[in-house]
Amino acid sequence: MSCLLVIFGGTGDLAHRKLYPAVYNLIASSSLPDEFVVVSVGRREKSNEIFRTETEENIKKFSRQNNEDFKSLNNALSRFYYFNLDFIDQTGYFNLRQFLNELDEVYSTSGNRIFYMAVSPENFLPIVEGLHKAGMIATRDEAYNRVVIEKPFGSDFHTSQKLNGILRNVFGEKDIYRIDHYLGKEMIQNIMTIRFANAIFEPLWNNKYIDHIQITSSETGGIENRGSYYEKSGAMRDMVQNHMLQLLMLTAMDVPTKIDAQSVRDQKLKILKAIRPLKKESVEGLVVRGQYDEGIISDKKVLAYRSESGVNPDSNTETFVAMRIDIDTERWNGVPFYIRTGKRLPYKTSEIAVVFKNPLLPEGLEKDSMIKANTLIIKVQPQEAMIIWLNGKKPGTISEITPISMGFCQNCSVGEVSPDAYERLLLDVLRGDSALFAGWDEVEYSWKFIDNIFESWHGEIPDFPNYAAGTWGPVAAEELLTRDGRQWNEYIWRCFNYEVLRCVNAHT
Amino acid sequence: MSCLLVIFGGTGDLAHRKLYPAVYNLIASSSLPDEFVVVSVGRREKSNEIFRTETEENIKKFSRQNNEDFKSLNNALSRFYYFNLDFIDQTGYFNLRQFLNELDEVYSTSGNRIFYMAVSPENFLPIVEGLHKAGMIATRDEAYNRVVIEKPFGSDFHTSQKLNGILRNVFGEKDIYRIDHYLGKEMIQNIMTIRFANAIFEPLWNNKYIDHIQITSSETGGIENRGSYYEKSGAMRDMVQNHMLQLLMLTAMDVPTKIDAQSVRDQKLKILKAIRPLKKESVEGLVVRGQYDEGIISDKKVLAYRSESGVNPDSNTETFVAMRIDIDTERWNGVPFYIRTGKRLPYKTSEIAVVFKNPLLPEGLEKDSMIKANTLIIKVQPQEAMIIWLNGKKPGTISEITPISMGFCQNCSVGEVSPDAYERLLLDVLRGDSALFAGWDEVEYSWKFIDNIFESWHGEIPDFPNYAAGTWGPVAAEELLTRDGRQWNEYIWRCFNYEVLRCVNAHT
Repeated sequence: MSCLLVIFGGTGDLAHRKLYPAVYNLIASSSLPDEFVVVSVGRREKSNEIFRTETEENIKKFSRQNNEDFKSLNNALSRFYYFNLDFIDQTGYFNLRQFLNELDEVYSTSGNRIFYMAVSPENFLPIVEGLHKAGMIATRDEAYNRVVIEKPFGSDFHTSQKLNGILRNVFGEKDIYRIDHYLGKEMIQNIMTIRFANAIFEPLWNNKYIDHIQITSSETGGIENRGSYYEKSGAMRDMVQNHMLQLLMLTAMDVPTKIDAQSVRDQKLKILKAIRPLKKESVEGLVVRGQYDEGIISDKKVLAYRSESGVNPDSNTETFVAMRIDIDTERWNGVPFYIRTGKRLPYKTSEIAVVFKNPLLPEGLEKDSMIKANTLIIKVQPQEAMIIWLNGKKPGTISEITPISMGFCQNCSVGEVSPDAYERLLLDVLRGDSALFAGWDEVEYSWKFIDNIFESWHGEIPDFPNYAAGTWGPVAAEELLTRDGRQWNEYIWRCFNYEVLRCVNAHT
Repeated sequence: MSCLLVIFGGTGDLAHRKLYPAVYNLIASSSLPDEFVVVSVGRREKSNEIFRTETEENIKKFSRQNNEDFKSLNNALSRFYYFNLDFIDQTGYFNLRQFLNELDEVYSTSGNRIFYMAVSPENFLPIVEGLHKAGMIATRDEAYNRVVIEKPFGSDFHTSQKLNGILRNVFGEKDIYRIDHYLGKEMIQNIMTIRFANAIFEPLWNNKYIDHIQITSSETGGIENRGSYYEKSGAMRDMVQNHMLQLLMLTAMDVPTKIDAQSVRDQKLKILKAIRPLKKESVEGLVVRGQYDEGIISDKKVLAYRSESGVNPDSNTETFVAMRIDIDTERWNGVPFYIRTGKRLPYKTSEIAVVFKNPLLPEGLEKDSMIKANTLIIKVQPQEAMIIWLNGKKPGTISEITPISMGFCQNCSVGEVSPDAYERLLLDVLRGDSALFAGWDEVEYSWKFIDNIFESWHGEIPDFPNYAAGTWGPVAAEELLTRDGRQWNEYIWRCFNYEVLRCVNAHT
């Protein structure tokens, strides 16, 4: 696991908020070997000392809480270095090579290198070429060179293919780690464990017993100061193409014979390929887009999207997407997946709700009964939880049915203790385990699915804004389900606004 | 629902601790019509006033807690009457008839009567004959006469058949209500709701997914001052023949097409008839009996059974029974039911544990994993709860499996709020609903199954005492399961010794 972690864009937000705190926590929890160094590569002139001081401050600010007194911090910081480089200056890469080779010697990192691209995509080409021309990629046979890419991986199939070509000119597919940080979250990893380590779920996980599945990822926040990024991205590129489709694949995939990168990717890809393509005429009925107007969030008035800074006052960028996805496999034939994601919604949650069919009630149980379909909720954030809704007898001298819920939450009472997604993912890159990273095929097929929708959208000008901040998106998102005789699983969130334990035990 | 409730043995323990508080709670919750009177029939001379004073005291002492200030108590007491009768004095029944007829007029109870036999079985014959000869059974056509019988209903098949004959001479089977108060408990009624109102359970409820089922009913108490009763009864008659077999039937039965007395009884009976009979030579291996020695319960030293008052110092009465029961149906072929019950055990609990088979783990999930079989616990008392044990990912940067539990408890935080079993059962008798009462066939087949075991036991003198008070019974009870590669689901109780909520969310 010895390694030199080289972070391009090492002075940026991602590096300071996520990567350095993750590295620090890994060092603090003794998860990294002594043969490990971080090199931040940035365009600004900066001394190691100044860089370390900045890094120290940011780790204290952004690190998760359970490291008492940051006692390993000095030890960790001593392994952080700064290297100044203008990414398009190809000669600078020879200096970088020299610098890395020296650190290699000092820290015995055996030539193993991880190049982390925390930069915008236009920098990929000069960086990859620079690394290549300076002879930094093909080193010793036994050493590895891995590259880590952040989203957005392109803005459509065409651009993603181009980016991928740049990488593949130099790196093998197995050395490319496309990060979707959602996949590093505890409960996302838990999806596979829950599905495959419990004998009671797999027999029920199909169209005989499941009525439909809902996947929601909602935020109360707006776009903060990321207006210019978001204008080009929108909810579809920012959330659906990557996170939402990954959740869908993990929920829907068949049991792999083995939990390794290839087997898991194969199964996920099978789902992606089986998604029923949206014909131009069906997009309107099956895909809902929205953009928030001004409204109220947590008793505070908030701006409309079009009034946010960095946003075009006539912007047609979508801040909300809901859609129905059908998966044409034997397992899922007839089971719609409804997904929705958006900004400025009433609560923050990411969750998968598996809604089972109603039972055939024996005569005598059904009358006057408030029966709710059995529902399994896997909650990814902010609570890391699992909830099951069942039906039980209402206490009393008559036989009435009432919904009951039971839950498990691993961070409700103690706050954030789980490792951050980046800790897990960085470790996985070091271990050479790419099971939690997106393969090129997944990127390819998800873009193709999304591009199809864009094509239809571009033909029509949406009637934006079409939902008030603080509501669950446009009316059409409700209708997407009511039309099918279903509804979004709203009252579970109401519940989760409160403490999970009180809530899961409440009769409703 | 108008009715005259006549309680024979109305000055006894059962009446004062259970029946009167139940009637009071039904009146307080407006569950009874105004046309309702209670007549306590006893051998002691007593005025209505004295009887009502005694009843008032006992209701205040034994009633469940949620009736603020007993404000309906005076109203309730005004409907309680006392009638003095020597059960074997046949002429007295004519006076009783006269008394009841007068109350009938005053309270407009339309001749509807429930005769509650809270007396020992030797009184059945004179009482039933007295009622019959005084012309109290066959009254008006449109009125009903129902009889309620408490356990023990006989001490073996032969005696129960005789008792049944006495009743059947005068009452129709549909008017005989054989109370098993366990069946009135909230969570016992909930078994059917849980099984039949949740689509996710029925598909799993068979030998393809279930490994085995455990039914436990344990008490920490000894025999208190019931030595002479218990000497003749023992755990087999006191618990197994009725409560334990009822739990088994409710857990194992097929889905009835209708939840009514006949359909439910039919399905239960099918299970009873399908229990594999124990041949004399297999009793020793499959049935374990025990008797407690002195020991420690809740840090206090307690006596051996043989030293309790009213107990023969050489007594061979069993205070503990564990056995393996096989049900020869397609659903249960190969799924053993292990039942155990006993006195002076470490915790008080009644619960059903459905233990599912282990999943076929994909390679990569299994290594170093602490995996527990999925288990559904339906807890009848003291907590009214349901718990599911699942496997999840242990939070952290590696993929380790850990058991997680989630639960629902309806009386853990607020104490006893559910209606007492007797409230539900009395109401059911009034409503003419015998679904929660044992039919004669059930009594017949359960005695035949038990008699078979007694026959084998009578041939051998047990080596009693064979377990210390405060332990889980004799070693042979452990071996009953370990021999099959299984174990009693102990650690769930440890958990339930504490508050349920804390517990179901604890990682183990």
